[in-house]
Amino acid sequence: MNNEDFIRRDLKHIWHPCTQMKDHESLPLIPIKRGKGVYLYDYEGNSYIDAISSWWVNLFGHSNAYINSKIKEQLEELEHVIFAGFTHEPIVKLSERLVKIAPKNLNKCFFADNGSSAVEVAIKMSFHYHKNRGEIKPYFLSLTNSYHGETLGALAVGDVGLYKDTYKEILIKTLQTPVPKDESIESAKEALKDFEKIVERYRGEISAFIFEPLVQCAGYMHMYHPYFLKEAAKICKKEGIHLIADEIAVGFGRTGEMFACDTAEISPDFMALSKGLTGGYLPLSVVMTTDEVYSAFYCDYLEMKAFLHSHSYTGNPLACTAANAVLDIFEKENVLEKNREKIDYIHQKLQQFKDLPNVKEIRQRGMIAAVELKGYDFKERVNLKIFKYATKNEVLLRPLGNVVYFMPPYVITNSEIDKMMKVAYKACESLL
Amino acid sequence: MNNEDFIRRDLKHIWHPCTQMKDHESLPLIPIKRGKGVYLYDYEGNSYIDAISSWWVNLFGHSNAYINSKIKEQLEELEHVIFAGFTHEPIVKLSERLVKIAPKNLNKCFFADNGSSAVEVAIKMSFHYHKNRGEIKPYFLSLTNSYHGETLGALAVGDVGLYKDTYKEILIKTLQTPVPKDESIESAKEALKDFEKIVERYRGEISAFIFEPLVQCAGYMHMYHPYFLKEAAKICKKEGIHLIADEIAVGFGRTGEMFACDTAEISPDFMALSKGLTGGYLPLSVVMTTDEVYSAFYCDYLEMKAFLHSHSYTGNPLACTAANAVLDIFEKENVLEKNREKIDYIHQKLQQFKDLPNVKEIRQRGMIAAVELKGYDFKERVNLKIFKYATKNEVLLRPLGNVVYFMPPYVITNSEIDKMMKVAYKACESLL
Repeated sequence: MNNEDFIRRDLKHIWHPCTQMKDHESLPLIPIKRGKGVYLYDYEGNSYIDAISSWWVNLFGHSNAYINSKIKEQLEELEHVIFAGFTHEPIVKLSERLVKIAPKNLNKCFFADNGSSAVEVAIKMSFHYHKNRGEIKPYFLSLTNSYHGETLGALAVGDVGLYKDTYKEILIKTLQTPVPKDESIESAKEALKDFEKIVERYRGEISAFIFEPLVQCAGYMHMYHPYFLKEAAKICKKEGIHLIADEIAVGFGRTGEMFACDTAEISPDFMALSKGLTGGYLPLSVVMTTDEVYSAFYCDYLEMKAFLHSHSYTGNPLACTAANAVLDIFEKENVLEKNREKIDYIHQKLQQFKDLPNVKEIRQRGMIAAVELKGYDFKERVNLKIFKYATKNEVLLRPLGNVVYFMPPYVITNSEIDKMMKVAYKACESLL
Repeated sequence: MNNEDFIRRDLKHIWHPCTQMKDHESLPLIPIKRGKGVYLYDYEGNSYIDAISSWWVNLFGHSNAYINSKIKEQLEELEHVIFAGFTHEPIVKLSERLVKIAPKNLNKCFFADNGSSAVEVAIKMSFHYHKNRGEIKPYFLSLTNSYHGETLGALAVGDVGLYKDTYKEILIKTLQTPVPKDESIESAKEALKDFEKIVERYRGEISAFIFEPLVQCAGYMHMYHPYFLKEAAKICKKEGIHLIADEIAVGFGRTGEMFACDTAEISPDFMALSKGLTGGYLPLSVVMTTDEVYSAFYCDYLEMKAFLHSHSYTGNPLACTAANAVLDIFEKENVLEKNREKIDYIHQKLQQFKDLPNVKEIRQRGMIAAVELKGYDFKERVNLKIFKYATKNEVLLRPLGNVVYFMPPYVITNSEIDKMMKVAYKACESLL
């Protein structure tokens, strides 16, 4: 079999996510045979540096020997068991470890399968918490340009028109307040004024404020100052509004610290995790919350206050095993410390983009770096041009609109960073 | 470590799905160390026949040697890759095979991670299809007593009050029409009258009719006649209403044939699959649809009609590998044919429950059998009493309200069926 065969067979029966399938008439799908470390290999001997960690999920490389060995061991013991009424060792260990590394007070873990489902759990739980205490608070507040997933509840609290507008007739009403327009403390202060206004206007009606801390990844890698969150958190606390931190994309070291909430020095009422949780291996998500929230549901069954949400594969032992292996690597290999050098190196290499006349801005927050281009209408689809150029040159880049970004697995070496950045630079240059 | 240690550690940090956690003060969690075939084993040497296939997911036993070997092979090749712009062998093969076994015209596969997400994909896709053709149809029609999942969109199309009522202020409005009240053709005809009425009343405003074909599993294993679906399908076709078959629980042979739609002789516009898809191993779901639906989204990108839904782990190669292994077993071991004997045997054994004075009705559809008790208020929680009795006697039963049901892995033997039924019988008897 070669690439062509798989492409033909794929297009006959598969509808890919987030894709206009007609694009594949001119932009060939790439069938991947195997992965190792930061590299993906197709059926014709081409390799690609996975500069976007396969949609921001991979942390320690493809087909990681250690994670593989742990999953193989677990396969011999227990692949899965119903997680209502039953439990198992991988999830008990994982929960203890998550509580240990999470911002303070997040003592309880509720598991699901993907990021969207975690967001749905958090918003349902927050609404239900208030209801259990006799209050109906039908609104959720989120930031402009936010993205929280694709199921209808998650989509309703998001704000990227590209994903949301089509479905407006079947979405519940939510509230949006401006995200700080850039990384300055001034814009954070500006945005806080609007934040106060909307909270005042809907006083007593807002269950929770949901946000992607520091980086709105799907929102074109928009970054903002931690001061905004610190102050918004104070307002929410005063007003009885829950904080839901959506760390699905930014958690597990992406922003430099283990969680972006650590940088912002906030302890949310809910934190949603997925993606990096299993190191890019398997779908798994978790909502961490406080004993206080948990207590509002804890009572005799007949009071009918229990949180009856479930997914069949909740707490899947194989996925939990991958997650434990990921945390093993974090501990043993001092990953956050080592990443600091890589962050500096990426920072240094990123500066060259300033020389290009079509670059509007460069941004970086930890292991996430972005180059925003200027002068292109979205209709020009420069993202596709850059994708094509880069894959031909053995790098997987997948710009969001006019924003070229880097979010590589942490096992990337300096010479691989060199190559990734060089190809991206030449791709941007090729547009001129 | 023994059971006690894990229970203590679990309860400190874990919030279980679909559970009033206070119940665990009197009903101990059961920590499972390993599984093999139909058996689950705890840390104190107790074993349990998994009579509910761990929430209806397991088909060929726990820690199945063949499925294990296939996943181990795949781990060495590719654990995961982004599924936008890229593809891989396990999913290409899986899609070809699903198309081959699905009801006719379901030629396209769109993947997600869990059942709820698949339902969300189907309802978004149906709504979006009509919109792409210039029609806004904001309603979805479903059956009373239906269950389609827990995310807000899936919850909105469901009708089990226990899961839905709490969230009514944050759910979109949907329409429900009565499910046939029993398995008779008369009740199907009765329900069709109401069906026609609601379709007429909301003519031109309904995107899709979503249903669990033949068995409403979470709706207390309620069963109805295939005639209802056959006739409802005709009405929907005439009215331009999509059919969404939610085969998440009933697919892959549970009702006797591969899909319940086969028994009802209908070809839906969308079919959602999950649970048994990976044989109980890993979260994976798929929405299968027609070339006609696919075509309504296929156009130049700038027409902005693409379906931009995505989940990070869409099309996970490990989960697809498990699914391919499951289909291998179906093919090689002639599973549906062999199940016919088991279905007969279960039927025969089920009759004994008629002798019990607290049994209202027995029902069976293929590998799903149910015993409905009478004379108990829901406050008595006989389901917990039966759960306790059964686990003490080495069988995992988890009644839904007053309905004791059996949905075992297909590898169960006749003597294991004997034991499962005997324990269930004695559990019901113990209530007298």
